[in-house]
Amino acid sequence: MSTLNRTIEIIGPLDEVAMKEAARRQDSLTKPPGSLGRLEEIAIRIAGITRRDRPQLLRKTLFTLAADHGIAAEGVSAYQQAVTREMVRNFLRKGAAINVLARHASIDLVVADFGVASDVAPDPGLLSLKVNFGTKNFHREPAMSRDEALCAVERGIGLVQDADLVGTGEMGIANTTSASAITSVVTGKSPAEVTGRGTGIDEIALHKKVRVIEESIARHRPKAADGLDLLSKIGGFEIGGMAGIMLGAAARRIPVVLDGFISGAAALIAATLAPRVKDYLFAAHRSQEKGHAVSLSWLGLKPILDLDLRLGEGTGAALAMPIIEAACKVLCEMATFEEAGVSGKS
Amino acid sequence: MSTLNRTIEIIGPLDEVAMKEAARRQDSLTKPPGSLGRLEEIAIRIAGITRRDRPQLLRKTLFTLAADHGIAAEGVSAYQQAVTREMVRNFLRKGAAINVLARHASIDLVVADFGVASDVAPDPGLLSLKVNFGTKNFHREPAMSRDEALCAVERGIGLVQDADLVGTGEMGIANTTSASAITSVVTGKSPAEVTGRGTGIDEIALHKKVRVIEESIARHRPKAADGLDLLSKIGGFEIGGMAGIMLGAAARRIPVVLDGFISGAAALIAATLAPRVKDYLFAAHRSQEKGHAVSLSWLGLKPILDLDLRLGEGTGAALAMPIIEAACKVLCEMATFEEAGVSGKS
Repeated sequence: MSTLNRTIEIIGPLDEVAMKEAARRQDSLTKPPGSLGRLEEIAIRIAGITRRDRPQLLRKTLFTLAADHGIAAEGVSAYQQAVTREMVRNFLRKGAAINVLARHASIDLVVADFGVASDVAPDPGLLSLKVNFGTKNFHREPAMSRDEALCAVERGIGLVQDADLVGTGEMGIANTTSASAITSVVTGKSPAEVTGRGTGIDEIALHKKVRVIEESIARHRPKAADGLDLLSKIGGFEIGGMAGIMLGAAARRIPVVLDGFISGAAALIAATLAPRVKDYLFAAHRSQEKGHAVSLSWLGLKPILDLDLRLGEGTGAALAMPIIEAACKVLCEMATFEEAGVSGKS
Repeated sequence: MSTLNRTIEIIGPLDEVAMKEAARRQDSLTKPPGSLGRLEEIAIRIAGITRRDRPQLLRKTLFTLAADHGIAAEGVSAYQQAVTREMVRNFLRKGAAINVLARHASIDLVVADFGVASDVAPDPGLLSLKVNFGTKNFHREPAMSRDEALCAVERGIGLVQDADLVGTGEMGIANTTSASAITSVVTGKSPAEVTGRGTGIDEIALHKKVRVIEESIARHRPKAADGLDLLSKIGGFEIGGMAGIMLGAAARRIPVVLDGFISGAAALIAATLAPRVKDYLFAAHRSQEKGHAVSLSWLGLKPILDLDLRLGEGTGAALAMPIIEAACKVLCEMATFEEAGVSGKS
């Protein structure tokens, strides 16, 4: 049995007993019941994921996966392909937004090359998990082979080791084109409904981007319920890797914080492979990229933040992870009415 | 000249030069321009407040002010008045939600008694700034004298010492009734439009709460543009204190993070006294309490978080302060395209 199939097989349901116990404790804490709103719901779901009614999230790891996309040749991005490699160097020198935000929140940042189009110099801060030198241009041919798709997902699964909370992020010029295509096929919305300006293209380029996606889907007819088929025809190596991280984390009962639109597309892939993975996912924020609201709705996830972010890298996840951690601390560390000698409701 | 008038007089406009310099730097950093959305706007406004184009928010202080409200005698709250004092003890023993969340975000928590209805035992962790033993029942008579209103505001002003970011929070059984009355008068909305269930009253009690507010406003006719008149007739000591903190912080060019609905009512008071204070305020979140959206709109503030919170104490502020800090770190610590050798837009 493949690593992927073994992983999918062991993803279990949420632990109802731990969730009930956590909910009971929420109502005994010194606050009006429900007054911490979504913080209370988040902590209860973390209890169900971790099987601990007082979950602690001490070790937070964020994975930023980089890869290139052959579809960039169609002129669908405002930036040239070389920027992917340049930004990887920026991550390693700690000059990017994700470096600043991960450091701010005491999150371990793991940077991995899943398929940058050129060689990236070896660096102690870089995991080289390159599946290939960028995907093919999927407007003309499938993005990758099915074996490569499986490889990307399984390398993602392998990345998840000991952690209490995992986040996903990415860097890849033109990857909103792949994410829009995936989002369109899985959710059944038209490409025009889920395609936005990415890093900042103009109206003409946006029209072209939509047309490229429409034609690519018509050409390859990817199967909406087959994650590996989607990945191989219109996906990306970092998208496969992030889907693998989600599956690997769920198999280890570790909650996963999705960053933005690209992470959302990876979650769609992961959910076609193992529908139960959705219970393990938290949406950090709602991106400015319009397809993101569509994928979050399909996944049944409500974003924690809504700050008009559209950078990627994991920046939204790095901002949301401390809020999830805070939700668990409230559940674990607050006094009960009885302990504090505070009168309950009249 | 009174401390209040001196304070109001020195509140200046935002520093346009620092804001322009910060905006210029935002566009030079290694990210598509505008891709960090509201984080970028927040950091630019902090630059205008602090007059530093690379503002650092090292020392974060959150003030939780406690006071009682005579209006509680009208049965407008789900909890008895003794809970205010009991919760102050809980704050001092570090068992409340605000203790957990302030500790999580490395925020100094200052707890002050501005008017709890009974004696609170002295404690090294408690500032005793009691104006009186709770307000009067404003359904029958003015909540406090105009001198007491001035005293509450000036004690708030005096609380602001060295800090880079200040947050406001409160505890006071029945204080949503006072906040709803203030919000109604200042914004011109009817009491029914700005009054909610507070800590969790039922439909019958909600109707009564609205009627009590309507009758109180009709009786006292508080002047919408006179913060001290509003405070003395329908206000609360902790609300006056929070308004003072906002004014004192603005006078020292320190940004202020408002917690929820009660902090919003205090901001309305502060803004009637010194309209420029609005430039110094950040809304941490939008409370479940329906009047909060009304006051935020009047203040021209967009909430950072929307997590269905309705606890108060400063809990929303404690969650939002690290996001504001992160926004400034991004501005200060990220590499520019030039420094990182990353190619700009094609």
